[in-house]
Formats: sequence, C-alpha cells, structure tokens
Amino acid sequence: MRVPSYASLARRFASGETSPSQELRRRLARLDEIEPKINAFVHVAREAALAQAAAATERWRQQRPLSPIDGMAIGIKDIIETEDMPTGQGSPIWAGFETRRDSASVQALREAGAVIVGKTVSTEFAFTEPLMPVHNPHDFERTAGGSSSGSAAAVGGGILPAALGTQVVGSTLRPASFCGCLGFKPTFGALNRSGSYDHLSQSCLGILAATPDDAWNVATAIAERVGGDPGLPGLKASTPPGAKAPRRLALLETAGWQMANEAVRGALIAARKRLEALGCEFANRRSDPQLDAFEFVIADAVPLTFRILDWELRWPLGSYEKHAGLSDALRKRLAGARKLTLDDYHAALERRREIRERYAALSARYDGFVTLGATGAAPIGLRWTGDPVFNVPASLLGTPAVSLPLLADEAMPLGLQIIGRADEDARLMAMAEWVWQNYGAT
Amino acid sequence: MRVPSYASLARRFASGETSPSQELRRRLARLDEIEPKINAFVHVAREAALAQAAAATERWRQQRPLSPIDGMAIGIKDIIETEDMPTGQGSPIWAGFETRRDSASVQALREAGAVIVGKTVSTEFAFTEPLMPVHNPHDFERTAGGSSSGSAAAVGGGILPAALGTQVVGSTLRPASFCGCLGFKPTFGALNRSGSYDHLSQSCLGILAATPDDAWNVATAIAERVGGDPGLPGLKASTPPGAKAPRRLALLETAGWQMANEAVRGALIAARKRLEALGCEFANRRSDPQLDAFEFVIADAVPLTFRILDWELRWPLGSYEKHAGLSDALRKRLAGARKLTLDDYHAALERRREIRERYAALSARYDGFVTLGATGAAPIGLRWTGDPVFNVPASLLGTPAVSLPLLADEAMPLGLQIIGRADEDARLMAMAEWVWQNYGAT
Repeated sequence: MRVPSYASLARRFASGETSPSQELRRRLARLDEIEPKINAFVHVAREAALAQAAAATERWRQQRPLSPIDGMAIGIKDIIETEDMPTGQGSPIWAGFETRRDSASVQALREAGAVIVGKTVSTEFAFTEPLMPVHNPHDFERTAGGSSSGSAAAVGGGILPAALGTQVVGSTLRPASFCGCLGFKPTFGALNRSGSYDHLSQSCLGILAATPDDAWNVATAIAERVGGDPGLPGLKASTPPGAKAPRRLALLETAGWQMANEAVRGALIAARKRLEALGCEFANRRSDPQLDAFEFVIADAVPLTFRILDWELRWPLGSYEKHAGLSDALRKRLAGARKLTLDDYHAALERRREIRERYAALSARYDGFVTLGATGAAPIGLRWTGDPVFNVPASLLGTPAVSLPLLADEAMPLGLQIIGRADEDARLMAMAEWVWQNYGAT
Repeated sequence: MRVPSYASLARRFASGETSPSQELRRRLARLDEIEPKINAFVHVAREAALAQAAAATERWRQQRPLSPIDGMAIGIKDIIETEDMPTGQGSPIWAGFETRRDSASVQALREAGAVIVGKTVSTEFAFTEPLMPVHNPHDFERTAGGSSSGSAAAVGGGILPAALGTQVVGSTLRPASFCGCLGFKPTFGALNRSGSYDHLSQSCLGILAATPDDAWNVATAIAERVGGDPGLPGLKASTPPGAKAPRRLALLETAGWQMANEAVRGALIAARKRLEALGCEFANRRSDPQLDAFEFVIADAVPLTFRILDWELRWPLGSYEKHAGLSDALRKRLAGARKLTLDDYHAALERRREIRERYAALSARYDGFVTLGATGAAPIGLRWTGDPVFNVPASLLGTPAVSLPLLADEAMPLGLQIIGRADEDARLMAMAEWVWQNYGAT
C-alpha cells in the first residue's frame, strides 16, 4: 500500500520513464479507491492538481525542475491557509472559510512546484475532538489518530507521498504511528507556521511522509523559501542529510511506559535488540542515573503541557464561545482555562525552561532518544484519537522527533520514535534514514 | 481638542455624574464633526457601540465595572481581527474580509467591557503605502503618519481616548508624534498579538491614547486576560504604575539627528533643559563614551531593520503578487527581498542580537533614553507618512518606548520619546506619567 519515494520517482522523471502527471493519476486512483472508506479529505482540488502536475511534467521534461519536490502531490491539514480551498479548522464554525491567501508553507511548496491536492481533515481546532472522524486506512473500525488525522490517513493509506500536519502535543507523530507512515516534527520554529491557525507556544509544522527523504525534501523546500518562524533561524542544512548510523542511543520510557501493555513494551525492547545487533549502543534509566533523573522530570510532561496550552487557548476559544458549533469538550476546557492566572502560566513556562535545560545537557551525551510513537495500535472506534503521552516530551522540549512505521501491535502499524537535539534536525533525519535503510535488513 | 482621561471620567461614572453612554455620545459627536475631514475610519459600528456603552453604564451604575476601562471607546487598527467588522489590512485585496473572530487583544478588551467603536485606517499591510490617506487632525493638508494612521488621527483628533495600533518600525510612535497623542509600544511580545495580521519578528501591538494612565489601563486590560505573545511572559505589573521621577537620563541622538533641522533639534535641547530644571540628570554621547559607542552601533538601525523585515515579508507578499491590487512599491520591495538568502537573514538576526546585548548593558546605567518621536512636524501632503528613523531603535531593540505629545514644530505637535528597558514597561510608564504631570508646570 506504501507510496513510492518521490525522490526515487524523480530520477525516472528526468529520464522520461514516467511523469508527475502519470504519478498524480495513480495517486488519484488510489484516492478514489480508499477515500470513501476513510474520509481523510475535506476538499480535493482535482482539476487544479492535474494542471499543476502537467506544468511540473513539462519542467521535468525540460530538465528544469523547480526543486526535488517539483510535481509532488501534497495534502494540507485543514488549519493551514490555502488560497484556492477553504480552511475549516475541523469546526462547523469555520466551514467554507476562504482565507484569500496561502500560508507561508503552502506558498513555499507552490514555489517549489509541489501539487497541492487537497485539504485534509483536522480535529476541532487541532485539539482533541474528531468532529469529522477519519478512519484508519489499515482498519476502518479504528481511529486514524489526531489532530493531523487526514494527513496521516492519506499518506498511510497510500494516497499521497507527503502531507502537512502540525503538532503541539502529539498531533503529527501519534497519527503517523497509527496510520503506518513517517511523522517528522522539526525543532520548534524550524518551519515557518505563519498562516496556520496555530498560535500556541509549542505549535510546530509537521510532515507526514512515506519515506525519510521525502519528509526531508518537503521540509527543506519550505525552509529555503520562507525560513522558520519569524525571528528564529529556521531549519538548518538544506542538503540531503544522507544516512548516518547512530552510535549511542538512550531508550526513553516516558510516562507512557506505564500505559503500554506487555506486547507493546516487547515491541520496543525487540527494536532495541535489533538496533544493538546493527551496532548501536543503548543506555536506559537503569544504566544511566542522569537519564533516570530526566525520566523522573518528564513524568509530568503531559499535565505541564496542558497547563501551558490551557492558558494559551483562552484565545481564540473565548472568541468562539458564543457559537453553538463549539464542542462541549472545548467549552469545558475553556472553563478550566479561565481559572488559571498569568502567574500559573509563568510558573509553567519556567518549569518548561528548566526541563529544556536538563535535556540540552543530557542530549549532548546521546545521538538520539528512542521510544514508541504511541501507546499501541490505533484504538478501536472513532470517538477518541488516542493517547499522546509518548509524543509530549519532544513537543514540550521543542526538539525534533521522527516516528518511523517499523513496529507492529495487534497486526496494526506502530511507530518507532527517535528524538534528537534542538536545531539538529538534519542529524536526526540522517539517523532516521539509516534506520530506515537498515532496520528491515537484519 | 484633547479627550479627557478616561480614568478621571471613571471616577465620575461611579458617582453617577456622567456615564459611558453620555461620554460615547460626546465622542460620536466629535467623530461626526471631524471624521469627514480626516478619514480615520474604515468602519464605524455606531449602533453596536451605543449598545455596549449602555451595558457599561449599567455596570458602573451598579458599582460593578468589569475593569478600569469598562465603557471606554476604543478604535482598532484595521489589520487586527474583529468578529463584527471586516478587516481590510489597508489593501483592496482584503476589502470587506470577514474574519469570524476577534483577535486576542479585542477579545480581552471586550471582556474588560471596552466599547469597540470602529476600525481605523492602516497603510497597505501596515507597510509604507497610504492607499487610503488619513489627514492630520491638526492640519488637513498634512499626513497623519503611518502605519497606524487612523488610530493616531482618531485619538489626536479628539475622537477617542484610545486606539490599538501596531509597530514594527515606527508605526505607533511616529503617527502619535504627528497627531499629538501618546504612543506606547511595549516590550516585544508584551501584549498578545495573535489574530493580528502582523507576523514580523519585531511586530508589536501598540497603543495610542490621550494620557499615560489610559494607555496603561488598556495595556493591562489586555495582558491580564490574554497575556503576551504565546510563550513569552507578557506585560508585567498590572497595578497602575503611578508617577516616578527618572533620576538619570541619556539623550539619544540616533541616526535621526542628522535629518532633523535646527528648530527640531532645538525642541529636544529645550526639553532636556526643562527636565534638568525638574531635577533629572542627563548624559549624552559627548559625556559618556559607552553611549557614544552605542550611538555608533545603532547608526545603521534602519537598513538592518529593513533587511530583517524584507526576508520576513516574502510571505505573505509572495502570496498576493498575482493580485492587481498589490501596490507597485510593495512589488518592488518583494523583488528586492527575493534576492536575500537565508544566510543574509541569519546574519541580520545575529547583528540584532548583538545590538540588544549592548543595549541591555548600557540601559542598566540609565533610567531612560530620551529622544524625539519623529524628525519634525508631520510632512505636508498625503503620499508619504514620514520618516521612522527616530522610532527604529526601540523597535529593533524590542524595548518599550513612549512618545508624549509635549513638543512642537511648525506649530504642529511633536513627540518627546522615552525608551525604557526590556520587560520594564511599568517603570517606563511611571516615568512617562511623571513627565506628563510635571513637564508643563515648570
């Protein structure tokens, strides 16, 4: 079901063997087949996409592609502005809303020649409520996860090679883990999120992709053209990071360990063994007291993150309160948020700062931190998008993290997550590429 | 022509002597008189404002105001989202655009009981082009300045006690200086700018007001309810800062000194003498070598700021390029911006960081830095909104600054600017209040 790497296809575009137009038709055929069963899209711009692919085909024919992703079919999470399609934010309050412009990321993707195929379903305002449930492409009875539900389902379901998501808690890596695709959440601010309805202090543009090289090519296409969040350096290193073996890894349990069952824990333990067989050294909380102390510190990462975000969601939720379309769950959360004071918020930010400092010290000693992408297979049912506990640490830390669809639970996909150092995204993705190339081969 | 301090009126609301409704009628009468001559507003929500004022009147009558600014009539710069009025960004491309929500600042103002009177004219996308020219209320042949043109003209013209503006270069303090009102640009990020079309890395919500206490009350009403930019601490100290005399001041010439004529320089020199007579000590670049070095460093603040902003305006201007409504001036600027690389941007950010460090060291030795609000009286004509050279340093530094309408040039208002230390906004405003109370009395 997996979409071929666009980077590998592109080599064949150059030779004329196939073309972006032909490839897009294959993508649309897959969409026609599976979309009625998963509901990943809010909007599909079929004719516009075919026209964009035709233009890309012509550029490849002339050996003058605009970028490595020229002609690549990409889906856009429906909280990100697109000039030619409405941006509905997963809420009936915003259904059909026309933004009159592209977000920074979409503008950059268009400048790089990407084909913007459609808008993918988000949970309500990218929070917890799946008002438009997306079915998991590997089992239609299960959730696709959230909040980047449609993007993960579209890529994991073999429709698209890549899609944009966002992550503030676990919204890119968790659905990636559930849907069997790669999820890449860069360093905080590494990709310009201007023009995304996404103002929280941990929010980050994320990428769902079929392969590490595609994820990296999409990320660099954005960074080269519009940089990171204004005032921040943005993603470093635009060259392909290649594949590089990690030497020293740390196994990170997180608070999620207590919530994963024996089979799921066994999947991570087996992954560790396989990586050790490939030559990686591993530490864990029992072998490294500093790592143990850090596990202790991040044990309350989930409530700390929610305290920070609760203050920050007073706006815009306060502005939507009068609308009947706001879910009861978010009304309840807003009511709780109103009990917070600015001092509570300051205390939470200070705690986050301290945790980030500890991680910076610890992470200098490891090439990466390995954990799970989720607590297990995607939950059965469509009302709950799953637990983000394994994804929260990297979100809170602002560090890059990638979930690779290499494990399994209940015959469903499960992600292997690697967390890197802040501002060293290329290094993390080089490790991910190495794991990608070597993991299956042992 | 000056609007009375709302804080002083509020004491009379409590006694029943007057009311927000009566006061709003006086404001609307002034609007009817002068607005046809100055064109400060894009939209006036007269009926909604009267209803809001009636509700505030009732709260004051019951001695239960929501805040010190309950019932205060406020104008909103037209790049800031308002649920009940379009947000046009000073561009024909966005005319009539409905945002379906309030910005964080407007949500907070409504929660504090403020009366949202209307949307005030901005230059095109808050950059340089006055596509809808605003006339100076003190001389209709002159510009009101920009980019917060309408907000400054509405307050300086005696219509409103306060209005929201923004500043990334000189967009709050310069029009305040030209229009004879107070302009307050807080520390970068001190007031939540979410929901403002204002994504640049120096952008800041600014306040135009008739008096320092009104400016402070508006600022704290926002900060208490929605804080600062997400992830930043936001404005500190919600209590009225009172009046506090500065002891040691530095006279800052900036690159503007070479552009001000003898009369304008004389106005600042006279202001220094008056403050000295009131007991303040003054240093200048000739008496303090460290200050002289800093003057040298900020001599290129204007080109450095424009280099940073040029990279950052690639989006969204790149997304508007296809529209005929984009001005030639901004097209030209976008073309220049496209020649910048991400490395150029990084170098400029690094230079800004270094300058901020130098200022932090220098500013520990002074209570404030005194300079002009503009290079002179508002220029004659409506095509050019004036030179921001005196306003750029505080914008680049991210420090709080206030322009007080205490000087004159060509029988027009001219601002006296005081720049404070980052995150010490209350301290700056206490100085401003002291100057306000004492300056005229010598």
